[in-house]
Amino acid sequence: VMGIVNGTTNFILTTMSEAGLGYDEVLAEAQRLGYAERDPTADVDGHDAAAKAAILASLAFRCDVRAEDVPREGISAVTEVDIAFAAQLGYVIKLLAVAERTGGDESAPEISVRVHPAMLPRTHPLAAVRGAFNAVFVEGGSAGELMLYGRGAGGLPTASAVLGDVIDAAHNLDRGTPGRAAPRAEARMHPADDLRCAWYLNIDVVDRPGVLAAVATVFGEHRVSIRSMEQLGMGDEARLVFLTHVARQGDVMATIHDLRALDVVEHIGGVLRVLGDEEDR
Amino acid sequence: VMGIVNGTTNFILTTMSEAGLGYDEVLAEAQRLGYAERDPTADVDGHDAAAKAAILASLAFRCDVRAEDVPREGISAVTEVDIAFAAQLGYVIKLLAVAERTGGDESAPEISVRVHPAMLPRTHPLAAVRGAFNAVFVEGGSAGELMLYGRGAGGLPTASAVLGDVIDAAHNLDRGTPGRAAPRAEARMHPADDLRCAWYLNIDVVDRPGVLAAVATVFGEHRVSIRSMEQLGMGDEARLVFLTHVARQGDVMATIHDLRALDVVEHIGGVLRVLGDEEDR
Repeated sequence: VMGIVNGTTNFILTTMSEAGLGYDEVLAEAQRLGYAERDPTADVDGHDAAAKAAILASLAFRCDVRAEDVPREGISAVTEVDIAFAAQLGYVIKLLAVAERTGGDESAPEISVRVHPAMLPRTHPLAAVRGAFNAVFVEGGSAGELMLYGRGAGGLPTASAVLGDVIDAAHNLDRGTPGRAAPRAEARMHPADDLRCAWYLNIDVVDRPGVLAAVATVFGEHRVSIRSMEQLGMGDEARLVFLTHVARQGDVMATIHDLRALDVVEHIGGVLRVLGDEEDR
Repeated sequence: VMGIVNGTTNFILTTMSEAGLGYDEVLAEAQRLGYAERDPTADVDGHDAAAKAAILASLAFRCDVRAEDVPREGISAVTEVDIAFAAQLGYVIKLLAVAERTGGDESAPEISVRVHPAMLPRTHPLAAVRGAFNAVFVEGGSAGELMLYGRGAGGLPTASAVLGDVIDAAHNLDRGTPGRAAPRAEARMHPADDLRCAWYLNIDVVDRPGVLAAVATVFGEHRVSIRSMEQLGMGDEARLVFLTHVARQGDVMATIHDLRALDVVEHIGGVLRVLGDEEDR
């Protein structure tokens, strides 16, 4: 399950992407329009999305996941530079709530539940979810890929959804049926370091011969394989933009740790997971 | 309700659009891959989509609509030229099953049910439904815009959907509940000529002074207002590509009839409805 479940952050990322504006500017505009609160922390730091990720995981795997157990990264570190590179590479950046089964079986699943910004291919159905809209993308064993899309906020849509739930609850009370949300599995959390996906990294380095070799060596030492690299000169500095093949999260974090220790590395900018790359879509 | 409900035609239109190929070539490829049957009529002429439009309308408005009462246009007249113009104007072409309430009330709705290719803005959620995928876009009074997306064919997804229906039917039998699909409204069909939407027209004319004025006069006589026009020279001929403002279907058909009678008009190519243009998406 991958969801765009927070309208405020999706509005901010969509506007940054389509208007080419920076985070602070768009956040201020979102506050002016009433899409973001004066204190935007609950939205932009992913607290709200983490609570919804816990609900999605609980429903998907019929277990009991709590919001405070969901690791989260917000969108405040996403820059217009990363959004522009993503677009150039054929991707969009979205804040995702992810819940996936990584092992075990239905009665004792091992799951990963988390919230973070990620790059999705422009052709992914979630990439078309713009502004304050929400959507949940589900990949089922037999049913394949499914998506549910709708307005994530607003008086009437919320009233419609709440009323639908109340009617379902009344039906269940009336018929003595328990509903379908009761937990009945015991889930184990997958260690974050063992998660595997492709990564985008944006690294500013001193522009002199041998620097790329030094950087690439660090990737190699941690078995992180590079899928593509682009180099942009910027005066005395150069910017290196990497896409990796699928790699273990722990190995990518160790790579970043060692890169920071290199004296030719000036700054590590965007570090983003790349999800949803499939041939058949 | 607007749906992309036929995987074969969506595969053909997506491939024409993304590979820049012609209809015949892509149909042959679809047949080779098993996406289209040897006799593709049921798909490409919209028979299958019309049957599904009838089901969608019956569910949405709780009335009894039959496939043979659904007017349909297929995709065999859609050309790579129209697809390229659509892309240039920010649209994609999709075969849509449409069911909408045009008047009346819940117990006696006036509805329009139909199947035809249409231009949708690239930013519309249905525009992202590619290849053999299906989706149904619903606009509700309170709930706003909703979309359901999934695989439209294949052994396992079909088995999963059928089994879900069988389980629901068993629940209904078990509890003595009638399900939600029983018709209880009497629907009246909206006259097609009175339908209103924007239109795309692609007209080849003799390239000489005064031709545009002659063509525009015909539009004006039928109260069809032109939103934009683009002219492309092609030797002795010129191609005029029009987008209209929202116009009555009967007036657009009368315009086309009179245009064909002009001796400066060589050929009327694509004529497509333009749907889904909204500010707020």
